[in-house]
Amino acid sequence: MSLDLIVRGGTVVTASDTFKCDIGVADGRIVQLATAITDEAAAIYDARGLLVMPGGIDSHVHLAQPSGEGVEMADDFASGTRSALFGGNTTVMPFCLQEKGQSLRAAVDAYHAKAHNNCLTDVSFHLIITDPTPAVLGQELPALIAAGYTSVKVFMTYEAMRLNDAEILATMDAARRAGAVMLVHAENEDVIRYLSDAHVQAGNIHAKAHASTRPIAAEREATHRALTLAEVVDVPVVIVHISNGPTIDEVSRARSRGQRVIAETCPQYLLLTKDDLSADGWEGAKYVCSPPPRDREQQDACWRGLETGVFDLFSSDHCPFRFDDTAGKKRPGGTFVHIPNGIPGVETRMPILFSEGVKKGRIDLNRFVALTSTNHAKTYGLYPQKGTIAIGSDADLTIWNPDLSRTIRHSNLHDNCDYTPYEGLEVSGWPVAVYLRGQLMMKDDVLLGSGSDGAYLLRPA
Amino acid sequence: MSLDLIVRGGTVVTASDTFKCDIGVADGRIVQLATAITDEAAAIYDARGLLVMPGGIDSHVHLAQPSGEGVEMADDFASGTRSALFGGNTTVMPFCLQEKGQSLRAAVDAYHAKAHNNCLTDVSFHLIITDPTPAVLGQELPALIAAGYTSVKVFMTYEAMRLNDAEILATMDAARRAGAVMLVHAENEDVIRYLSDAHVQAGNIHAKAHASTRPIAAEREATHRALTLAEVVDVPVVIVHISNGPTIDEVSRARSRGQRVIAETCPQYLLLTKDDLSADGWEGAKYVCSPPPRDREQQDACWRGLETGVFDLFSSDHCPFRFDDTAGKKRPGGTFVHIPNGIPGVETRMPILFSEGVKKGRIDLNRFVALTSTNHAKTYGLYPQKGTIAIGSDADLTIWNPDLSRTIRHSNLHDNCDYTPYEGLEVSGWPVAVYLRGQLMMKDDVLLGSGSDGAYLLRPA
Amino acid sequence: MSLDLIVRGGTVVTASDTFKCDIGVADGRIVQLATAITDEAAAIYDARGLLVMPGGIDSHVHLAQPSGEGVEMADDFASGTRSALFGGNTTVMPFCLQEKGQSLRAAVDAYHAKAHNNCLTDVSFHLIITDPTPAVLGQELPALIAAGYTSVKVFMTYEAMRLNDAEILATMDAARRAGAVMLVHAENEDVIRYLSDAHVQAGNIHAKAHASTRPIAAEREATHRALTLAEVVDVPVVIVHISNGPTIDEVSRARSRGQRVIAETCPQYLLLTKDDLSADGWEGAKYVCSPPPRDREQQDACWRGLETGVFDLFSSDHCPFRFDDTAGKKRPGGTFVHIPNGIPGVETRMPILFSEGVKKGRIDLNRFVALTSTNHAKTYGLYPQKGTIAIGSDADLTIWNPDLSRTIRHSNLHDNCDYTPYEGLEVSGWPVAVYLRGQLMMKDDVLLGSGSDGAYLLRPA
Amino acid sequence: MSLDLIVRGGTVVTASDTFKCDIGVADGRIVQLATAITDEAAAIYDARGLLVMPGGIDSHVHLAQPSGEGVEMADDFASGTRSALFGGNTTVMPFCLQEKGQSLRAAVDAYHAKAHNNCLTDVSFHLIITDPTPAVLGQELPALIAAGYTSVKVFMTYEAMRLNDAEILATMDAARRAGAVMLVHAENEDVIRYLSDAHVQAGNIHAKAHASTRPIAAEREATHRALTLAEVVDVPVVIVHISNGPTIDEVSRARSRGQRVIAETCPQYLLLTKDDLSADGWEGAKYVCSPPPRDREQQDACWRGLETGVFDLFSSDHCPFRFDDTAGKKRPGGTFVHIPNGIPGVETRMPILFSEGVKKGRIDLNRFVALTSTNHAKTYGLYPQKGTIAIGSDADLTIWNPDLSRTIRHSNLHDNCDYTPYEGLEVSGWPVAVYLRGQLMMKDDVLLGSGSDGAYLLRPA
Repeated sequence: MSLDLIVRGGTVVTASDTFKCDIGVADGRIVQLATAITDEAAAIYDARGLLVMPGGIDSHVHLAQPSGEGVEMADDFASGTRSALFGGNTTVMPFCLQEKGQSLRAAVDAYHAKAHNNCLTDVSFHLIITDPTPAVLGQELPALIAAGYTSVKVFMTYEAMRLNDAEILATMDAARRAGAVMLVHAENEDVIRYLSDAHVQAGNIHAKAHASTRPIAAEREATHRALTLAEVVDVPVVIVHISNGPTIDEVSRARSRGQRVIAETCPQYLLLTKDDLSADGWEGAKYVCSPPPRDREQQDACWRGLETGVFDLFSSDHCPFRFDDTAGKKRPGGTFVHIPNGIPGVETRMPILFSEGVKKGRIDLNRFVALTSTNHAKTYGLYPQKGTIAIGSDADLTIWNPDLSRTIRHSNLHDNCDYTPYEGLEVSGWPVAVYLRGQLMMKDDVLLGSGSDGAYLLRPA
Repeated sequence: MSLDLIVRGGTVVTASDTFKCDIGVADGRIVQLATAITDEAAAIYDARGLLVMPGGIDSHVHLAQPSGEGVEMADDFASGTRSALFGGNTTVMPFCLQEKGQSLRAAVDAYHAKAHNNCLTDVSFHLIITDPTPAVLGQELPALIAAGYTSVKVFMTYEAMRLNDAEILATMDAARRAGAVMLVHAENEDVIRYLSDAHVQAGNIHAKAHASTRPIAAEREATHRALTLAEVVDVPVVIVHISNGPTIDEVSRARSRGQRVIAETCPQYLLLTKDDLSADGWEGAKYVCSPPPRDREQQDACWRGLETGVFDLFSSDHCPFRFDDTAGKKRPGGTFVHIPNGIPGVETRMPILFSEGVKKGRIDLNRFVALTSTNHAKTYGLYPQKGTIAIGSDADLTIWNPDLSRTIRHSNLHDNCDYTPYEGLEVSGWPVAVYLRGQLMMKDDVLLGSGSDGAYLLRPA
Repeated sequence: MSLDLIVRGGTVVTASDTFKCDIGVADGRIVQLATAITDEAAAIYDARGLLVMPGGIDSHVHLAQPSGEGVEMADDFASGTRSALFGGNTTVMPFCLQEKGQSLRAAVDAYHAKAHNNCLTDVSFHLIITDPTPAVLGQELPALIAAGYTSVKVFMTYEAMRLNDAEILATMDAARRAGAVMLVHAENEDVIRYLSDAHVQAGNIHAKAHASTRPIAAEREATHRALTLAEVVDVPVVIVHISNGPTIDEVSRARSRGQRVIAETCPQYLLLTKDDLSADGWEGAKYVCSPPPRDREQQDACWRGLETGVFDLFSSDHCPFRFDDTAGKKRPGGTFVHIPNGIPGVETRMPILFSEGVKKGRIDLNRFVALTSTNHAKTYGLYPQKGTIAIGSDADLTIWNPDLSRTIRHSNLHDNCDYTPYEGLEVSGWPVAVYLRGQLMMKDDVLLGSGSDGAYLLRPA
Repeated sequence: MSLDLIVRGGTVVTASDTFKCDIGVADGRIVQLATAITDEAAAIYDARGLLVMPGGIDSHVHLAQPSGEGVEMADDFASGTRSALFGGNTTVMPFCLQEKGQSLRAAVDAYHAKAHNNCLTDVSFHLIITDPTPAVLGQELPALIAAGYTSVKVFMTYEAMRLNDAEILATMDAARRAGAVMLVHAENEDVIRYLSDAHVQAGNIHAKAHASTRPIAAEREATHRALTLAEVVDVPVVIVHISNGPTIDEVSRARSRGQRVIAETCPQYLLLTKDDLSADGWEGAKYVCSPPPRDREQQDACWRGLETGVFDLFSSDHCPFRFDDTAGKKRPGGTFVHIPNGIPGVETRMPILFSEGVKKGRIDLNRFVALTSTNHAKTYGLYPQKGTIAIGSDADLTIWNPDLSRTIRHSNLHDNCDYTPYEGLEVSGWPVAVYLRGQLMMKDDVLLGSGSDGAYLLRPA
């Protein structure tokens, strides 16, 4: 058989297995795994001493998303997927936001236009519903789900996007009927508004107020509520970016009631704390994201959740705003409520979990792959095309040097932001090459692909 | 000393003590407790062989409350307090409902007008806020609280009355500042609406649908949310009419977080089940109340809550609608959603708990008094005037024959309803005389007082 | 009526009530409570501005208890009850220890001999079973319970005293049949032995090792086990001296299973921490007791348990060993395992809870009385003779000045120890007079009673 | 390349992946996975339309284990591994029991002698420690662990085998130092003894008494204790054969404390109930195993544990005693305490889980493989040699027809017992061929291998 590519002698890692073998690729797919492949091949990669993992899937990134009121995201598809690629990812899942009054289809078309020819990884969109009219839920959403847009996100916070319980129930009901999975950003907006009004009135306007106005109680409450709504509708639900132990407990309680819950956490809840938001001057704005980073005790709880299998997904929630920019973290207004919520992280996600998780003995290699790739594919209907190294799957391969040490510096990253919250962090382990459907996109920090290489992925209901 | 009354030789029961003594009353107050009182007295009651308990306080009754759309409550103050009195109560706390657009003061005045000269027990009003405008929360409510109306109720269910989270937070905040206690009816209205719409669409319109459209999950969720809102505002909160174990667990969780929570349950959650709502024809409507009765397992959970001290209050939630009446349970419409929510019970509350609780060994006499009287007085600021037998307290005395057996029949009750949900229940223990501030109001089933005897009770913040 | 004593104008506090009145005493009992007593009296105490509470009952003290191997308790009945009296107590309950091979009756007789004519308070013994032979459980124990010794303690720790599960089950079974209540010291001895052996082997012999070798896990485990054994036998059980949140959770879990559990904590778990054991030199030995003090987080958990009603009993676990004494804390051996376990506290118990609990707003006066007196009487069968101020009860009255400030100094205490772990603590509130059955035993720090005044209290099964 | 075997066109299932491919085998190992293998092969199996799964690993079986007092296990290695093979297994892990006073090495040697040349599957032994002398724990056990016997089981029940807490701690400590994993049978023997003595005394001697004398509380307690001991020693622990929800909760609690716990359940806790033990006459003895089957509610809890990932292992706990045999279930004595504990099930384990779990939509194929094979290999150190289909792994392949329906009849099974507790159960899905290291051992219900084919597996510490 004539192959397009052989990756030779690497240690293949999947969500359950670790084994040494050669990988044969033809027509963008994995066609052979063997002790030693003797076929001819157009290209060969010598992966001896390296790990070969399924390309990372970051199912929670925000790119070129309308942010309102003069705010602009730092990354569009071009820069965002570039950064993702250099971080070992071959698929990202950004959010297609329906604006109030907008038709879903129009939102999807507009978002496709932004992505077109600008992707260095494959992409697939989640739909954010902000205006669940009968027409949207009764006609547009079912049609889009049937067409391959099979994940739907709702917000319980952010005044412009939040849905009330009736709207969430109706959206979940429509999703259930059409066979989509639900994602929920669970924080109680009214609690946050109550506290932030009080802070502003009291003159507590520093960035650190962001943390105290979004307490664990607000996340715990909204999570329990979201899970109850999903219980009533009987639909599986993804609780995104969980930041603390009491919220983890809500997930465990729902599971012991028999519910199907997928739980996600992010690097910021393992490495940052609210103390970072207390930095002098406006520096704390760099760490403003929602939910906010908590404290050491909650970090430990999140690590335990990763170790003991509570969490299924480890995502970046990449949501980049430039720091030294009035369209970003220095948006005019001068109080914490004016700071756009979100931090960059798509490129550092995998190295951070590898270094802090695998190298420090908290999780094993297989769980690393499950958390960064396989479970994303399975949760969102990309599997088995994506998310594993198996016969017939796309040849999305991340070649990883487990011993390559790096100090994270924004100057070495590839996004369009102007800082990283992890500046100076020493990590061990970094991707040295990335194949997308058999095509070498990056090697040794050099970009080899182009924006037309990334494809859009439709997903079955 | 010259006394107005001596109650001689009874066994006095308070929330902590049980002892035999004579009780001396002057000017409506208890002035002497002694082995044997030798003073002169205008009247003597021979209580040998009987229990003497502080008059019952039912802090959760609905009387003459506007119910909208052609529905009318069966009891006004005259019949409601008469029924309460015959059930061993000397104080009831009905709800003064603010209608949308109405000023609080106007609502209070109108409600006082209804009560005036019509009360056979003392009364004090809770305020129900349905329209928490800035004027209401900023001016009227603080003024009324300062004037002695120190308990405020909000609803999370019933379309016409429900507040959203922001409104609840604002109301709790106002209550906290002015020193009032909050009561919450905790069921998630949107969940109920979602399920009842689905039931109606599917043609499931029988009374029993009332139970399946108000599931435990809706009560558990709203309770956790109410407790979280109270946690954020830092205000004590009464969770009324808890019907099941998972909701009890929410109370326990909040307490172990350090919150001050007062928990209430009612007879219907100990004796009725959803099977009662499944009765043939429209008979099930007799048991329609919210939350609905659950099942045997949840009854057991509520009993355990009474036995182990989780519950502080045992109230009737007396909310009477006539069964054979188009202004009541047979309201036109023909589906479960047209049935007015609520059942009578102010007269049977104490006998039921005495018989099922004390006589069956589940709780002791002191806990009976705490649950039916003392804790109500302490929770709502009536103590020490009310709720105990102690020097200086009002001489509100219920003389109880612990061995008097009765079969509950509506024909023997004194409300203005036309049925009791407990028809035919055999109980052991019944009040044989009731004194209100030293005045004999009822003796051996004969009414001796008049509607001008009951007083309105203002309460300190 | 001619009275022996009138306590005039004080504020009477019981477990549920607070009211101003005169108290009339005759023949050692309370015979009258009244706004104003006009009868003659042999003695009058002017209690205006003071609190009058039922005499404290400390149901967990160790006096003159055989301690083995050259160790001697600092307090006998004379000094122990003296110290108790000055701390506001009128009853103490020490432990009558059965030594291995000893008959229970012999142990009781020997202990009575020590107590005889040496008590300044009333006393009643718990029985400690260390040798539950068939003869002991089948004949002696039932006979003693029937005779009024109705509380039985078992140890799950201390090599010389511990029972295994079979022995505990057999003892609980005998107690249940005869109608006694069980007390359990719940720590897993094998865990402690395992850890202390390892510490000694590693040369970690400082007093602070006492804390790390008796971890929360050992207490949590043994508590769950004790509660399970009681669940199987179906007997009420007192878990003594609970020190932490996870163990509190075990109690809550058992109660929600429907078990009757009485829970106790002590001052050392509210004010001391393991850091106290880390003091330089041998100073840490002063704080060696079991379970050991934990940390700030666990102190908070214990306070929450007091505030929210988890705990029923607040006792001293007075177990005094002199510090500068080879029969005490300086017992030869030189390692933490040689330090006798226990600290003094019978005199400071009530002032500490009053000052830290009542004055700081954590608990109210009634709960203070319940925790320090009433609940002890009710748990152990002394009620209504003891534990309250009610007609017919013993006139055990502690007159308390709520505003008297003291700095705790051992030099001012009345035990026979040579230190207090609370040296230097400022407290507000102190007893100024104590009546035992109507007799003035202490007034303004002057002892007025004698060792023949205290009586032994038999208790009904 | 010249291959020994090609399995063609099947659907390969691993713990994470499902994909269609050809499998190439050489020298007993998997050397190639490919879309289409074109190499020569000595043998070809046409697996189109069939599933190809890693051979089942049943890590909890009892074979030829000394059972004392005239009792004999129905299966030796020959019949036990035959039955296992026909049920789709290629590896079983029986228990090598140390008898009291016996050296571990002698026990291992004796057990090897029984296994030698009698195995139709590969085998590896767990060690049961019943006599943890210093010599055993200090020398023999470390030597055996180093030699490849890396799993150690202790019992908290059965008088002849149980260890006390100190012995368990010492054994766990030795296991931790040498790098072995611990297994614990967690039931409180003293509780069981207390209850069974009471039952026998009361004349309740029917087989059903087995269930009521081993209550959930006994399992819950011992599990919490075992987990606490493991927490103190800091060793991973396998809790075997969990039968109910409260015990599952103990596992969850330990995990949220951060402990590494592996949890196992068995078919009997999903399909049988205590009602089976209540069958007339002695029939109930067929279902006597420990812990006993519970009720429908607990079955649901176990299913939820399988669905939500609480359980890692699904084993048979095959422990066969003949029913109509005085060396088996009809052991003389005539009371439930004389019935040998254990039921057969090694052959029905996989079909039952496949039919009830996969076909009924409760778990997916990958979880089926994880629960029946992969997780066993990973937990006990057999991975990656066993437990997966990956390059380099042993070619242990179970070819499964997912649609083959069978009615379970003992007459069709291959053990040496005389009944199956699942007689008459309809299942869908059954193994049609089994390869052991590339050798076809069974095909279409015909045995092709011999007792010398099974190998003993040493495992790294």
